[in-house]
Amino acid sequence: MDLNIKLDRQSRVPLYMQISNQIFREINSGALRPGTRLPAERKMAGLLGVNRSTVVNAYSELEAGGYVSSHVGRGTVVAVPDGPEKVETFRWQEMLSGQGESLINPYNSAMSELLCQRDLFTMDSGIAAPDLYPLKEFAGITSEILMSEGKTILQHNCSRGLKSLRESLSSLMKTRDIQASPEDIVVLSGSQQGLDLIARLLLEPGDCVVMEEPCFLGAIDIFRAYGVKLIGVPVDREGMMADRLEMILKRVRPKLIYTIPTFQNPTGVTMSLSRRKTLLELAGRYQVPVLEDDAYGLLYFDRPPAPPLASMDRSGTVIYLSTMSKLLCPGLRLGWMAVPPDLVRLVAAAKQLADLHSNNLVQRMVDIYYRRGLLEEHLARVRERYAAGRDAMIGALTQYAPQGMSWNSPGGGFYVWASLPGNLSATRLLQEAVERKVSFVAGPAFYCSGRGGNRIRLNFTYAPPDLIHQGIRILCRVIKDGMGRAGEVRSATDKEVLPLV
Amino acid sequence: MDLNIKLDRQSRVPLYMQISNQIFREINSGALRPGTRLPAERKMAGLLGVNRSTVVNAYSELEAGGYVSSHVGRGTVVAVPDGPEKVETFRWQEMLSGQGESLINPYNSAMSELLCQRDLFTMDSGIAAPDLYPLKEFAGITSEILMSEGKTILQHNCSRGLKSLRESLSSLMKTRDIQASPEDIVVLSGSQQGLDLIARLLLEPGDCVVMEEPCFLGAIDIFRAYGVKLIGVPVDREGMMADRLEMILKRVRPKLIYTIPTFQNPTGVTMSLSRRKTLLELAGRYQVPVLEDDAYGLLYFDRPPAPPLASMDRSGTVIYLSTMSKLLCPGLRLGWMAVPPDLVRLVAAAKQLADLHSNNLVQRMVDIYYRRGLLEEHLARVRERYAAGRDAMIGALTQYAPQGMSWNSPGGGFYVWASLPGNLSATRLLQEAVERKVSFVAGPAFYCSGRGGNRIRLNFTYAPPDLIHQGIRILCRVIKDGMGRAGEVRSATDKEVLPLV
Repeated sequence: MDLNIKLDRQSRVPLYMQISNQIFREINSGALRPGTRLPAERKMAGLLGVNRSTVVNAYSELEAGGYVSSHVGRGTVVAVPDGPEKVETFRWQEMLSGQGESLINPYNSAMSELLCQRDLFTMDSGIAAPDLYPLKEFAGITSEILMSEGKTILQHNCSRGLKSLRESLSSLMKTRDIQASPEDIVVLSGSQQGLDLIARLLLEPGDCVVMEEPCFLGAIDIFRAYGVKLIGVPVDREGMMADRLEMILKRVRPKLIYTIPTFQNPTGVTMSLSRRKTLLELAGRYQVPVLEDDAYGLLYFDRPPAPPLASMDRSGTVIYLSTMSKLLCPGLRLGWMAVPPDLVRLVAAAKQLADLHSNNLVQRMVDIYYRRGLLEEHLARVRERYAAGRDAMIGALTQYAPQGMSWNSPGGGFYVWASLPGNLSATRLLQEAVERKVSFVAGPAFYCSGRGGNRIRLNFTYAPPDLIHQGIRILCRVIKDGMGRAGEVRSATDKEVLPLV
Repeated sequence: MDLNIKLDRQSRVPLYMQISNQIFREINSGALRPGTRLPAERKMAGLLGVNRSTVVNAYSELEAGGYVSSHVGRGTVVAVPDGPEKVETFRWQEMLSGQGESLINPYNSAMSELLCQRDLFTMDSGIAAPDLYPLKEFAGITSEILMSEGKTILQHNCSRGLKSLRESLSSLMKTRDIQASPEDIVVLSGSQQGLDLIARLLLEPGDCVVMEEPCFLGAIDIFRAYGVKLIGVPVDREGMMADRLEMILKRVRPKLIYTIPTFQNPTGVTMSLSRRKTLLELAGRYQVPVLEDDAYGLLYFDRPPAPPLASMDRSGTVIYLSTMSKLLCPGLRLGWMAVPPDLVRLVAAAKQLADLHSNNLVQRMVDIYYRRGLLEEHLARVRERYAAGRDAMIGALTQYAPQGMSWNSPGGGFYVWASLPGNLSATRLLQEAVERKVSFVAGPAFYCSGRGGNRIRLNFTYAPPDLIHQGIRILCRVIKDGMGRAGEVRSATDKEVLPLV
């Protein structure tokens, strides 16, 4: 037995406690096994150079805790633990908050699995083409940063984010016609965090949020977790239907209108200029804040889309949200918000509560990447590639899709939105498609009302164009097979594997 | 005038809308200035190869929005905007949630300023020594990762964090006697996020949280933001006073006991083994979860401290929280939690809502840094350095402190906790000290009851030992000066510059 006890006579911790602490560590870690005999008190006192009474006190404390037992004649022996019978396990479910309870059955719990096993013909993801990630540039810039300014960059920084990055983002936003100063910007750990921060600042359970239907599922999840009522506004080819929005605003007082006006997720639709104007006019008239998610606005293929709401906002109702996940890659977790002046301080305070600030190293890396003009070059590359992906997808759909299937052809972004023929269940189809190594997202994930059962979202950015072509060919075959047993498929109501992003 | 309009005849967006959208962009961005005359409808139709009625519709839409005006004889002219008179600004304060309102007057809003202007004798921070940051190793490892596995590492990953890092953390926790499998671990964007996730899962406004008093101010801030009542348990040299805790548990049903049992922030105190046992026993008996913040546990100088609560927990009440911020550097934003099995799925779901997952690049970097044994070497280096910092601080205090001042000498961690002589106001003293280039944190920031007016927290890890010695010498001079005008100082109740971390 090797009892390596060190005493610190300067410490305010009493010596007996130092001894019992250290013996306990050994017992607790298993180094001192049950049945092991501790040195006799007098011997131990001599070994450690303390009074015998100190050791007596130490052993007594251990005995009181049931860690040793002491018997006349046998000395002090490490006790057998109470055995494997479990103390009653703590019941966490009874302790949960409303938000905690809402997470017991999350809608998209299977996402991790689907994300971990990427298939050959992946069209479910909302992920930028990995083969275009600028790895070499990132590696070079990161090394530069660490070697030249690592000492400061690895310390804390302001909750709003690195000033230098906020300047770059301000400049980037000018290409979207938005005038936002670095002081209006808060850097985020991904745009999902922006949704969370706005939710925590504005929403109380029972509040109401208006959004497009269908809509980005991460937004549905987060707003639901805050216990708010979601009201979906249908989307046509000009975007959120303004007349329906106005009818809603006449009836309820939502805390927020959440919208992806440009190359919407999942529909790929871009809101028309006149709808944008109407939306802003309604937001002003009914005094409802607008959260504009512009994750895809810079990813146009032919010509720049209609200007973002934030560029036309004169009353300070629009919060602008965007992310590097779609422009560059999602693993960096870097997004940002441009926030009206009255709100920006609160967003920064909420950010500080949530995680103090975002990773500085990545902030500075993206900052430098932008300042050297590399982001612009990258955007040119991905626009070309994604346009080719879209063309491959539309071409293959035109060639292989069965009668009764329809889809749109977006001018940018990540997704084609398609309707299955008849009442074919998208959820059921997904199971069958995944067996054939083809993936997509089934419509219901995007609907706050649970509809969308025969819609599917097809991503054309992750897989290269030739694989997209093949993937669509296989998918169309699976759809035709499904149509053959339409009766059977129609009855399916199970909704297991719902993937995400 | 160079109107570069591109039409997409495949698009579902009507041609008239494509035209009006693009003209609007030009007007909105300022490229088309007020007074500019647009081409006549017939001419424009010819230029674009569309029907005249299409251009008529486009111009009408622009006119309806007030962007152009059209007059017989003058044609269609870009309108003068409505002038700089502001539309009434949106009133955000009226829209806030309870948490939003709690942030209107944050306690520590001045932190950013203090953090941005680090002084010569910095003893306010809770920041690891920057000159020991392993910049070269980080640069090398980061490049390796990007070049060898960048394509996957820059995609999304599971909300719980990279499996490989969770294995490393599981192994690291064994050195603290904690048996946690990778499945029990959730990687965080800093430990602050852990506080936020637990708060959102467990706390509702009006709930009650018990914590040490004084206590880590980030914890006070976050729990306050969730609208809970904070109950402080006094700390003596054995840590949180167990008899006081039991009295509280008899009266109220807290949702959480938050504690930093080892090298506590701000007091540096380590909870004794017997207190730890009592705390766990009470938590089990009264069925209250315990959140153990072990940010400093590995930073012992002489011998390992008493084992963490999580290592002694048999009923699954303890959530274990730690961070790389104190071990390595805070700018990476990387922390983790080990969570009882019944709760871990919910924590992962909450993490997904908050920011999907933490930055993969940094996760993998720390993972490799650990696997190569570099963290262990680093810990040996910082322990030696911080022990020297503590010794320099204690030595200088012994040498220079005025009569009536007292302090402790912790066996690890980041802080010495001191009492000022008489009723000297720490907040007032801070102002005077900062003028002399010396900083610390004034006591009231750490008290949920607003007490601690004559306590100060002194950090010995950020500045090198020789500067600490000089800093303490100057500080003691400032204190003596303050004592000279004690009457004046005593009356000060203003509490401006409160720094953080």
